[in-house]
Amino acid sequence: MSSDIELGRGKRGRPAYTFDDIAVVPSRRTRNPEDVSTTWAIDAYAFDVPVVGAPMDSVVSPRTAIMLGRLGGLGVLDLEGLWTRYEDPEPLLAEIASLPERSATARMQSLYAEPVKPELITARLAEIRDAGVTVAGALSPQRTKEFYEPVVAAGVDLFVIRGTTVSAEHVSSAAEPLNLKEFIYELDVPVVVGGVGTYTAALHLMRTGAAGVLVGFGGGAASTTRATLGVSTPMATAVADVAGARRDYLDESGGRYVHVIADGGVGTSGDIVKALAMGADAVMLGVALARATDAPGNGFHWGPEAHHPKLPRGHRVRVDQVGTLEEVLYGPALVADGTANLIGALRKSMATTGYSDLKEFQRVDVVVNPVH
Amino acid sequence: MSSDIELGRGKRGRPAYTFDDIAVVPSRRTRNPEDVSTTWAIDAYAFDVPVVGAPMDSVVSPRTAIMLGRLGGLGVLDLEGLWTRYEDPEPLLAEIASLPERSATARMQSLYAEPVKPELITARLAEIRDAGVTVAGALSPQRTKEFYEPVVAAGVDLFVIRGTTVSAEHVSSAAEPLNLKEFIYELDVPVVVGGVGTYTAALHLMRTGAAGVLVGFGGGAASTTRATLGVSTPMATAVADVAGARRDYLDESGGRYVHVIADGGVGTSGDIVKALAMGADAVMLGVALARATDAPGNGFHWGPEAHHPKLPRGHRVRVDQVGTLEEVLYGPALVADGTANLIGALRKSMATTGYSDLKEFQRVDVVVNPVH
Amino acid sequence: MSSDIELGRGKRGRPAYTFDDIAVVPSRRTRNPEDVSTTWAIDAYAFDVPVVGAPMDSVVSPRTAIMLGRLGGLGVLDLEGLWTRYEDPEPLLAEIASLPERSATARMQSLYAEPVKPELITARLAEIRDAGVTVAGALSPQRTKEFYEPVVAAGVDLFVIRGTTVSAEHVSSAAEPLNLKEFIYELDVPVVVGGVGTYTAALHLMRTGAAGVLVGFGGGAASTTRATLGVSTPMATAVADVAGARRDYLDESGGRYVHVIADGGVGTSGDIVKALAMGADAVMLGVALARATDAPGNGFHWGPEAHHPKLPRGHRVRVDQVGTLEEVLYGPALVADGTANLIGALRKSMATTGYSDLKEFQRVDVVVNPVH
Amino acid sequence: MSSDIELGRGKRGRPAYTFDDIAVVPSRRTRNPEDVSTTWAIDAYAFDVPVVGAPMDSVVSPRTAIMLGRLGGLGVLDLEGLWTRYEDPEPLLAEIASLPERSATARMQSLYAEPVKPELITARLAEIRDAGVTVAGALSPQRTKEFYEPVVAAGVDLFVIRGTTVSAEHVSSAAEPLNLKEFIYELDVPVVVGGVGTYTAALHLMRTGAAGVLVGFGGGAASTTRATLGVSTPMATAVADVAGARRDYLDESGGRYVHVIADGGVGTSGDIVKALAMGADAVMLGVALARATDAPGNGFHWGPEAHHPKLPRGHRVRVDQVGTLEEVLYGPALVADGTANLIGALRKSMATTGYSDLKEFQRVDVVVNPVH
Repeated sequence: MSSDIELGRGKRGRPAYTFDDIAVVPSRRTRNPEDVSTTWAIDAYAFDVPVVGAPMDSVVSPRTAIMLGRLGGLGVLDLEGLWTRYEDPEPLLAEIASLPERSATARMQSLYAEPVKPELITARLAEIRDAGVTVAGALSPQRTKEFYEPVVAAGVDLFVIRGTTVSAEHVSSAAEPLNLKEFIYELDVPVVVGGVGTYTAALHLMRTGAAGVLVGFGGGAASTTRATLGVSTPMATAVADVAGARRDYLDESGGRYVHVIADGGVGTSGDIVKALAMGADAVMLGVALARATDAPGNGFHWGPEAHHPKLPRGHRVRVDQVGTLEEVLYGPALVADGTANLIGALRKSMATTGYSDLKEFQRVDVVVNPVH
Repeated sequence: MSSDIELGRGKRGRPAYTFDDIAVVPSRRTRNPEDVSTTWAIDAYAFDVPVVGAPMDSVVSPRTAIMLGRLGGLGVLDLEGLWTRYEDPEPLLAEIASLPERSATARMQSLYAEPVKPELITARLAEIRDAGVTVAGALSPQRTKEFYEPVVAAGVDLFVIRGTTVSAEHVSSAAEPLNLKEFIYELDVPVVVGGVGTYTAALHLMRTGAAGVLVGFGGGAASTTRATLGVSTPMATAVADVAGARRDYLDESGGRYVHVIADGGVGTSGDIVKALAMGADAVMLGVALARATDAPGNGFHWGPEAHHPKLPRGHRVRVDQVGTLEEVLYGPALVADGTANLIGALRKSMATTGYSDLKEFQRVDVVVNPVH
Repeated sequence: MSSDIELGRGKRGRPAYTFDDIAVVPSRRTRNPEDVSTTWAIDAYAFDVPVVGAPMDSVVSPRTAIMLGRLGGLGVLDLEGLWTRYEDPEPLLAEIASLPERSATARMQSLYAEPVKPELITARLAEIRDAGVTVAGALSPQRTKEFYEPVVAAGVDLFVIRGTTVSAEHVSSAAEPLNLKEFIYELDVPVVVGGVGTYTAALHLMRTGAAGVLVGFGGGAASTTRATLGVSTPMATAVADVAGARRDYLDESGGRYVHVIADGGVGTSGDIVKALAMGADAVMLGVALARATDAPGNGFHWGPEAHHPKLPRGHRVRVDQVGTLEEVLYGPALVADGTANLIGALRKSMATTGYSDLKEFQRVDVVVNPVH
Repeated sequence: MSSDIELGRGKRGRPAYTFDDIAVVPSRRTRNPEDVSTTWAIDAYAFDVPVVGAPMDSVVSPRTAIMLGRLGGLGVLDLEGLWTRYEDPEPLLAEIASLPERSATARMQSLYAEPVKPELITARLAEIRDAGVTVAGALSPQRTKEFYEPVVAAGVDLFVIRGTTVSAEHVSSAAEPLNLKEFIYELDVPVVVGGVGTYTAALHLMRTGAAGVLVGFGGGAASTTRATLGVSTPMATAVADVAGARRDYLDESGGRYVHVIADGGVGTSGDIVKALAMGADAVMLGVALARATDAPGNGFHWGPEAHHPKLPRGHRVRVDQVGTLEEVLYGPALVADGTANLIGALRKSMATTGYSDLKEFQRVDVVVNPVH
């Protein structure tokens, strides 16, 4: 691409930007926050707010999935987390929150060594379904073949396949890898899949028939993928690239609109605003929801990378608790740092810059500070 | 614009710069500081210095408005602040200065829940008028319709409408919004309006008949608009853009010169110099004046965003007190960090770079450090 | 070069990037980590992993050279270090680890004033050879003439000449300088030589007949070359430049492939990934291996620059011990910061981005964040 | 200039770089440090090293001027400092070093309020002359007319006129300003004058007949000119620009070579290297020499800006004492941070990059890290 930078003889690199590097700017029109719509729909499922709770044990339990659904969003349960490994994970969640810094990784590695139990998958999803909210569960690509049947049988509404990097073409010499295209074609349930961070990889993922793609890897608050793997795609650029793939695939497919969900680096209401401004249809929130007093993490946040048995690529991080899940989403906020009243801030930002719905807002002007 | 940067497929952003990114540079001529003029005039009102005290309770009280006027500047009273909500706000100002960090926002939200009283608007403005200085008061665009009558009746000289973002075209489904153009046309008093941060929005504001526009939102010391709303315009670029609109509107209108007042991110004498260098006619100072020992904030600084009932977007911040208001403006300075003798520094900077008045100084050369 | 930046009238500079400025990005394909090959071979010597232990007393002793060899890598012994100056350096290594901050440099200057003893060179290399692993020893260019004979006599497999900057053309008015080309031609042993940081200097070094070149100077954790000498080449650019020289020399020489070994600034698994991505064939590790509990530095790390008698250009630095040398290379990791399971992380990164061997991986896409 | 950056509508700025942004890189040749020449000559005066002690009371006293001369450099005495205001300033220097932080500025303002005494100018310069070293003294442009006669009468070898910004064309409505061109023409002594930071201003200063110009303002360790005045020119760019003026003036004047002396931001040996690499002929050192145990500042450093009666633009800063003046210049160094053995480091850097004298070294390649 013409904007590539020469990094050295024979090696070029593409400039890429994080949410911190950019900001949105007002247009010549302003609106009332009350006149702004934040609704979002994917497949047959409509939501008041474009907020998806990340499948992480510190963020979504069956109970918080139900709460999030009732508050107008969507919670995705990690089907390889503590809730499907243990009959009663509450004491273990409490224990994790009380572990001293130095031994946290080792103890988590041991807790997550317990096998996943298909019958618990069934039970947890049923509990969410019984509450009348949209049901979503996530598996890693590595274990989707092994566990997808109880997930589908439990009547999941949205099936999420989430890994650090998920590609349409996984090469393996050992077992036959998951053929995403066939898998999605045969499944009756809409599939959301990721992470992905580039235009080409996203376009290939869209061609598998996915209803949505998750943008991101290595950008989250609890992840150290950049330090350990050297892999990173600054999120503002990644979201714009995948939104570009969405537009091109829409044309190529004759009208299939694949939803783009920013998943990583979305920690404050300002980040939500910027993710949507760069072209996301919705945001998957981890640390932003783990800050709720009623989140299952009890003031801590961690992802599946944190307990990898041999190569942990994330930490258990302590987070400030800023209010109930309802206050985190809708206020009132007692703090002014973008961690509470996320939706109020989104409405205010859209109103201030003159936009009335999320699709329109993807066109808002942005500035970049090239110095920092 | 041709200088846009590609942030990702299909999304471009404009580079924008803060005051910290730039510096002014000398020309081939130098002058004596005593030969430099810092005078500024807007409408019929002339000032020794281009300094406007921001309508914030930590900066301008009736008493400091009078002091500022006598020192050659202009103080703008916040007509929705404590002085128009309470008969005697002094004890409340003292209480705010004594609040512990964690409870400050909540207590301020409750203090500012008290209704604004029109008769206090009248009384406060009369007190300033009686002292013989220029009288200026500010309302938010949301409440201008409700309260402008007592303001005008009190014989205000300059009417300020100040919000995070003020546009010439506010869309509202509920109440009929303020039609700025009609309002300004019918009013007999010159109006200064803002914040605004872009060329186009500023041009539209100028067309409403405003005498001056305030440039800025989200850049101030006590504001967290960038974190909460994701909205920001780095101030150096914003001031230059609005100064560009001033020049184009001057041509379009056949000679109406609309004053550009930098309002946000102007915390030191160096920032004042840079704001004027980028094209501002004057600066609106918040934290820079809150540092005076006789400022009403008693060593603290906060803006209206800090006590928003549901979505606070700023903090009460502690500030170093560096001298009296007179010393802050004219020295002698006992510190060397750009917080005292603001006008002495401005004179020295103009003299060092060879300029003799503020209008000329808008042409001074600047450098940008692209690395930082 | 066309991408030069004007730094001032008549002086241009080339943009250069560190490993921190870049990251690798996935392609549209992913793989299983087990399907990835990390093998590397230079001359007749093959290795499971592209890891070379740096000739520094805190990293490679005869014992750790043997351990590294058995773990699939290569350890290079510093033949001007404590092991060839003292019969029993273990107590001195322990003493260095116990020195207070302020006196460390002075005491190390005095310890390293002891002369190098040829018979100890012979003995140390023999010890490594007896263990059946590849034998490599390093001399500085200044002392290569003086000491190379016992090195060769001891039957070294790879001869390393390592200095801050080594050029093919060293000019000296005093003694006849080392003529690298003649020296390498006459020697029967493959020679690895460096540091070098630019395309032209690397090309000239390659023409001397070297089997490999070390890229880097001034970038390491224990070095302050940039502060003291003002000399630096950001490593990502340096590696790409020297890899460019490798490609051009391959053509010019009709097929001689000179190995490029990144030596400096490679502190974490993420850095290893990036060095290989920029074109390195292998990495020389200092601090990354000094973090092993069984490294000779006992929790400290220093290089030859740290004890220069008149101009020290580095410090003894304290390092976190993160596991045994085996755990540092192959895990399991109990930390998630890129300091343990270096090879597991490399495999995961190659797999995630879709590459199956190191030579292919040199083509992986990279991004640069121009803001940081 | 074509490389200008658009900062906003109608305002452009030139990119400018500091020493921290750049580094020098080796060529394909290396040398022995002993073969490198660091000599410098201005007018009839030759020096072993291109080091000029700055006219600041913490750096140059009559005694240290003599020491610097004997060590091969040049010390410039501030003729408006304590040594020409007081018969015995030693106790006052000791007092300054013992002042608590908060009262330092005020007490220094009062100490420097004592008038300058012409007879002390005579005595101090005579003391230096008697020691047989080159004699140099500095006055500010504001007071040159008042005091130059005793300076010349005392038989000064080099006359330095040093201010924050000195221009060839100073405009003043009050007293007749110093006409530099006439003054220099009539004076029998070579004049060094500055600070200056841009090509055009430097060219005009060169046309006054100055033997050398000082490059810099606002960049020094003890200065806060950027914060207070908003004035700054990043030093790497400033030196290159003024060196460009030197080259153009050399042509225009038919062969007059005006020396360029970097004065500001030169705090370490790395900075010295970079200043010379950007085109400086010599460096004026402040904090770098104030770190000597036998410097008059007794572990503190300050400039004339620090005691301005109404607008101080600098601080008294505490500095680490790293050795005697001789050790600071020639080692041996016990620290590795570029503060000791400045000349050894310069020699090593020139040798490493393959240059044999200072004039050649001005052509060394530099890199810039555009990210930082």
